[in-house]
Amino acid sequence: MRRELFAEGLGTAFLLISVVGSGIMGETLADGNTAIALLANAIATGAMLYAIITTLGPVSGAHFNPAVTLAFTLRGDIASGLAARYVLAQILGAILGVWAAHLMFELPMLQLSTTARGGPAQWFSEVVATFGLLFVIFGGRARAPRSIPGLVALYIAGAYWFTASTSFANPAVTLARSLSDTFAGIAPAHAPMFILAQILATGLAALLLPRLFEAPA
Amino acid sequence: MRRELFAEGLGTAFLLISVVGSGIMGETLADGNTAIALLANAIATGAMLYAIITTLGPVSGAHFNPAVTLAFTLRGDIASGLAARYVLAQILGAILGVWAAHLMFELPMLQLSTTARGGPAQWFSEVVATFGLLFVIFGGRARAPRSIPGLVALYIAGAYWFTASTSFANPAVTLARSLSDTFAGIAPAHAPMFILAQILATGLAALLLPRLFEAPA
Amino acid sequence: MRRELFAEGLGTAFLLISVVGSGIMGETLADGNTAIALLANAIATGAMLYAIITTLGPVSGAHFNPAVTLAFTLRGDIASGLAARYVLAQILGAILGVWAAHLMFELPMLQLSTTARGGPAQWFSEVVATFGLLFVIFGGRARAPRSIPGLVALYIAGAYWFTASTSFANPAVTLARSLSDTFAGIAPAHAPMFILAQILATGLAALLLPRLFEAPA
Amino acid sequence: MRRELFAEGLGTAFLLISVVGSGIMGETLADGNTAIALLANAIATGAMLYAIITTLGPVSGAHFNPAVTLAFTLRGDIASGLAARYVLAQILGAILGVWAAHLMFELPMLQLSTTARGGPAQWFSEVVATFGLLFVIFGGRARAPRSIPGLVALYIAGAYWFTASTSFANPAVTLARSLSDTFAGIAPAHAPMFILAQILATGLAALLLPRLFEAPA
Repeated sequence: MRRELFAEGLGTAFLLISVVGSGIMGETLADGNTAIALLANAIATGAMLYAIITTLGPVSGAHFNPAVTLAFTLRGDIASGLAARYVLAQILGAILGVWAAHLMFELPMLQLSTTARGGPAQWFSEVVATFGLLFVIFGGRARAPRSIPGLVALYIAGAYWFTASTSFANPAVTLARSLSDTFAGIAPAHAPMFILAQILATGLAALLLPRLFEAPA
Repeated sequence: MRRELFAEGLGTAFLLISVVGSGIMGETLADGNTAIALLANAIATGAMLYAIITTLGPVSGAHFNPAVTLAFTLRGDIASGLAARYVLAQILGAILGVWAAHLMFELPMLQLSTTARGGPAQWFSEVVATFGLLFVIFGGRARAPRSIPGLVALYIAGAYWFTASTSFANPAVTLARSLSDTFAGIAPAHAPMFILAQILATGLAALLLPRLFEAPA
Repeated sequence: MRRELFAEGLGTAFLLISVVGSGIMGETLADGNTAIALLANAIATGAMLYAIITTLGPVSGAHFNPAVTLAFTLRGDIASGLAARYVLAQILGAILGVWAAHLMFELPMLQLSTTARGGPAQWFSEVVATFGLLFVIFGGRARAPRSIPGLVALYIAGAYWFTASTSFANPAVTLARSLSDTFAGIAPAHAPMFILAQILATGLAALLLPRLFEAPA
Repeated sequence: MRRELFAEGLGTAFLLISVVGSGIMGETLADGNTAIALLANAIATGAMLYAIITTLGPVSGAHFNPAVTLAFTLRGDIASGLAARYVLAQILGAILGVWAAHLMFELPMLQLSTTARGGPAQWFSEVVATFGLLFVIFGGRARAPRSIPGLVALYIAGAYWFTASTSFANPAVTLARSLSDTFAGIAPAHAPMFILAQILATGLAALLLPRLFEAPA
């Protein structure tokens, strides 16, 4: 049990290192061209997702995301007690990952984001982003389990671009990114609505997707 | 049957979300450098194609494209009645996808494109683009079926660059993109010739490609 | 036999469409930033290589390159008569591909490049580029045959950047690119030394690489 | 035995050609936008890593990195005498690769870098970068051995962005890059602390990772 929790924490820490670190590096080097910064951000995040899901998937299931853990809990694939500990490990790992990124880039460790990400269009973006993420995870599990690392990595790298919110799609990531006043940040006051949208999408996905994917065609 | 149609509609909706959404985001952030916007557009589209073909291929065949459905109808792989319903689901999904992208980016839902994409060079580009797409699909089915998601994703991401029309190669996508006055749009008056070129290429592909790929070498 | 030759011609035509077409598109859109044009050029070329090698590999072996055909002839894997016809099909396909790209982009079909690519550093670059290409092909065939499409695609996309010549590494491609006064062109007077360097590297590779890869470790 | 050493030397030479060569090309073409140069640098390096690990993995194990060789020595997977010869071959190959890149780009072969890369944040970055690299290698070996080339390639391409040091993560690469006063260089005076940080991370990884990955879950 301890090993699964360590895997969830370490993987989520690596995920946040890639999200926050590449955001800082991208913005620093891109000379004001935000599209180039976001391109670097998306590629680095996708690459890391592929790495941590491939290696830690066989250890803990590689959730790294309370929305994913919640979806599996709703389906009865994981007991709710263990699920709660997974979520704690993810949040703890996410925060440590943000702080590690700050240390690497010589920034103050403790920060609060000032980046506004509010309004119905942003929240709708998070519903779409999270539903799409669970769509590739449910679809991959049912139909192409070996493709899951590539599916999640490519989906998220793409979703940085096709959702207006750049696709947080992860409550632990949202919380941790509120602690970084850098490219990837989100103002703490705006985090709760993002998380609510993500949970809403999780419910929707848990309801709709099993019927789409489960029985053989 | 209903599930196949839902899969075709949902997949095509996701496809248009990625095409139109990443076009808007790319153009907004790229600071006037169209190449960077197109790069983001191509990467996001390719990533989404990989995701929806991998997950929905085993459900509906993952056509998401009336040209593909037509090619399989010409070969007798799908009955024409079902094919017609596939095409309707694709068109409906495509339009809903465009509208969802508009909502995410706070744009008016109902739009008509004003982007001119006409002339023989553009039409010839669509013939090449669509023939190439069917080439990788026929070739993949005959010779490397597990590689089809990667083949289509990479082919289209590349074809954004090597065809002058940025490779629509899909009548449902063409129709839906005429309803978006954003980066990915095409003026409604110019859509019919694109679709005609795509159908012409489909006939050509259905004629030539089976002889190239079918019998073992 | 005819089918193999058609496959070699068609595949090489697609290859040149991707190289020349994406070069034109990239330069047109990149607003003077050559690095962005080259990035598009490299990605589109790699994507196409993956597509044509995966689909046509089982048909003709997917050489698309007289240097590759020569290397296999030197090893006795292909009869020299057939090899000669492969090379003719590759050259013919390459030229038709360049012309098709010109048509798509509304450029005069018949052109001669004026881009200087001469001098010992460029020739040495072509030796390295071609040796490296044959290295991944020989290594892939001996050790990981299913990875060959990805190996060649990624190697060439990378070699656009790490060789000073942007890695032509292919006599048919070199010849055809001398017929295009666009981003990807090479002045006809400079083509022969590129081809000579490529042939030299092929001899070197045929000599050294079998000993490295063939017997089990 | 000779073949393994030749493979380690050749692979490391190719690695440095890609790192240093694409750095020069990227900086030359990127018109002052360092992010675009780094993007090219990261893509070319990742592509080459995929190529050399796929092809030479079955020959020598594809270490190309004294930190990797040290980690396997600590675990008892390779005898220390052979390990020492591996490291020598890696260093020799790395230096020859840097010189080959200089020749291709018409630069003086012998150079010393003047790029400062010092301070605790840089050293901490190298600890994270190297620990992460060994994390994907250990995890890949235990859980997904066929994915190792992709894991290392994507991890390093991402780590260019999410570590402040652009992720050297390799003592032979660090040493060789101190001999190039180009984009990828590091001042010789700053190399030892990078190498120390890499060795420290190797010890940490050899201690922690086997317990995480080895026994079945």
